Amino acid sequence: MSHKIAVLPGDGIGTEITEQAVRVLTALGLDLDVQSAPVGGAAFDAHEHPLPPATLDLARNSAAILFGAVGDWKYDSLPRELRPEQAILGLRKALGLFANLRPAILYPQLANASSLKPEVVSGLDILIVRELTGDIYFGQPRGVRQVEDGPYKGDRQGFDTMHYAETEVRRIAHVAFQAAQKRAKKLCSVDKANVLETSQFWRDIMIAVAAEYPDVELSHMYVDNAAMQLVRAPKAFDVIVTGNLFGDILSDEAAMLTGSIGMLPSASLNSSNQGLYEPSHGSAPDIAGQNIANPLATILSVAMLLRYSLNEAGQAARIESAVQAVLEQGLRTADIHESGTTKVSTSQMGDAVLKAL
Amino acid sequence: MSHKIAVLPGDGIGTEITEQAVRVLTALGLDLDVQSAPVGGAAFDAHEHPLPPATLDLARNSAAILFGAVGDWKYDSLPRELRPEQAILGLRKALGLFANLRPAILYPQLANASSLKPEVVSGLDILIVRELTGDIYFGQPRGVRQVEDGPYKGDRQGFDTMHYAETEVRRIAHVAFQAAQKRAKKLCSVDKANVLETSQFWRDIMIAVAAEYPDVELSHMYVDNAAMQLVRAPKAFDVIVTGNLFGDILSDEAAMLTGSIGMLPSASLNSSNQGLYEPSHGSAPDIAGQNIANPLATILSVAMLLRYSLNEAGQAARIESAVQAVLEQGLRTADIHESGTTKVSTSQMGDAVLKAL
Ligand SMILES: CC(C)[C@H](C(=O)O)[C@@H](O)C(=O)O
Ligand SMILES: CC(C)[C@H](C(=O)O)[C@@H](O)C(=O)O
Repeated sequence: MSHKIAVLPGDGIGTEITEQAVRVLTALGLDLDVQSAPVGGAAFDAHEHPLPPATLDLARNSAAILFGAVGDWKYDSLPRELRPEQAILGLRKALGLFANLRPAILYPQLANASSLKPEVVSGLDILIVRELTGDIYFGQPRGVRQVEDGPYKGDRQGFDTMHYAETEVRRIAHVAFQAAQKRAKKLCSVDKANVLETSQFWRDIMIAVAAEYPDVELSHMYVDNAAMQLVRAPKAFDVIVTGNLFGDILSDEAAMLTGSIGMLPSASLNSSNQGLYEPSHGSAPDIAGQNIANPLATILSVAMLLRYSLNEAGQAARIESAVQAVLEQGLRTADIHESGTTKVSTSQMGDAVLKAL
Repeated sequence: MSHKIAVLPGDGIGTEITEQAVRVLTALGLDLDVQSAPVGGAAFDAHEHPLPPATLDLARNSAAILFGAVGDWKYDSLPRELRPEQAILGLRKALGLFANLRPAILYPQLANASSLKPEVVSGLDILIVRELTGDIYFGQPRGVRQVEDGPYKGDRQGFDTMHYAETEVRRIAHVAFQAAQKRAKKLCSVDKANVLETSQFWRDIMIAVAAEYPDVELSHMYVDNAAMQLVRAPKAFDVIVTGNLFGDILSDEAAMLTGSIGMLPSASLNSSNQGLYEPSHGSAPDIAGQNIANPLATILSVAMLLRYSLNEAGQAARIESAVQAVLEQGLRTADIHESGTTKVSTSQMGDAVLKAL
């Protein structure tokens, strides 16, 4: 039976990078039904909504979604619910994509790209498991109201609700422990349990679930300390698990440690292994349409798609090896170019990966 | 009239470092009434509470508080409300210390200490203005409850409330704009307005207050991006203003960029310029009592105390110059020692600063 794959290119460089990734995906000889739909600003322009019903339907009915990137300055003045990034939030929520896997890997060939000293980051390979459908992102009530008592009585107040239910914490805990089992078996749960009730609750459940994974070493760290330790000694981490808000911050910080965010894929999975795959970088409207963006994060997202949603680990490894090979050949898009290497365009990078396959 | 100063040494290295800082403070020839009281774990041991009434009274009745550090593994199993760090939260709340000033400065003499490449961080001088009494830290309601409807109905759930009232955002905005006016006149407000109502509310007020400071250039950045940009190009920032939770994370990340957190002071002020001054580092129980801790962050906190609470900018500058001088002399405590410099103890460092005054 053919696998249905939804391709949502989005805005900015999204079109160019997904184009190369789709070339790679369709070159593997698998039985796939690949269909595209607009999302983000592009969808707003065409259908007045960043996540039109037809796009959402296509996503729902697909085994996996390959997502480019969304966003552009020109949508900044839209009301929040119509802005491009609402499409991502909407897809996560509608498909229950609760498990976000964000590897931060520094390829040895790109060690110089980092703003950190080579000895601090060379060989970096950490995995951040971010919970993606709970926390303060979707918590109700939220809004703007009048303060009813206390020192600010009568004042206007913006407010949001952070929360995690036991089921939500348990299922992300299992994802994280199982990911750690396949790696160096060290899991660090990041929270703010010295201040937040949600965090203390999260921590207690992490400790309870740990009993089922005696081979994994669980530690706990406050989020402020984690933000520091990622700068000081990132290689001390193996797998980090954390909530939606802290995960948003720490996964981006960790990605930037590598200096080559154009190389980093991500996966967002639900409990049936349906997944959304996207590069960790954004839509970079400033360089869109110039054929200079780095397609490798999106191509590596295809590898994650094959591994997690299509159960094709062998094909995933083929793509990952091909990417390694093009780096070995010295091919670099502008974002990771340095002297002594060959600067290539988006499509030339796609060509090279196809050739290396 | 003599100024009353409360000294709360706390736990771990708190005693040693405040001792040196008090020597420096009392050597200036000012008319001061310096009184000490226990706080944190030390106060729990003596009075079964991390912030006993007598300590709180002393703090309330002082012009300024010099705070060491609190915390030790041995209090980890206490219920949250009795743990050492509750003393800090209690003091902030009771005294209304809403404005936290956290400089992240890399002294040229210590450029090697950073895990970042020298060209990325040398000359780093940013100021983080963190709101300290609002946000999700004290927001009600909070706790653990049963979910009443939706997919997790019947589940237990941990929850917290994030909120900011207009008055709270306005007053921290004024502190931040005024700080920026005295520096490079660039203010970056960090929020998560693409997701949080509290953040959109915060951003709208920042924009409104900006009208009163036409000489300051206001920009906005999402917190995930800020965590990245601090790693990529920290020198692009001048002053950052943000809420309590994001400020907790970003100020620690920024501090660690310098690699010498033993050098970084902080101030927490209320609207009458009463303030709590403390080093940015923790209580380091592992090295307590060994006379090897770095007292300079605490000594530089005394300089902030003089500047902000006693209006003695000249005396503050004297201390800052003395610290520069001892660094120039090549004196280093263990945390910042490198070959070619002279390793000194906590008290020797205090001696050297006194001599340089
Ligand atoms: C665009 C935004 C809503 C989103 C988030 O905060 O989750 C993004 O930052 C991400 O990490 O995918
Ligand atoms: C100890 C803790 C409650 C505190 C905070 O989160 O504010 C600390 O991390 C700080 O930044 O002073």
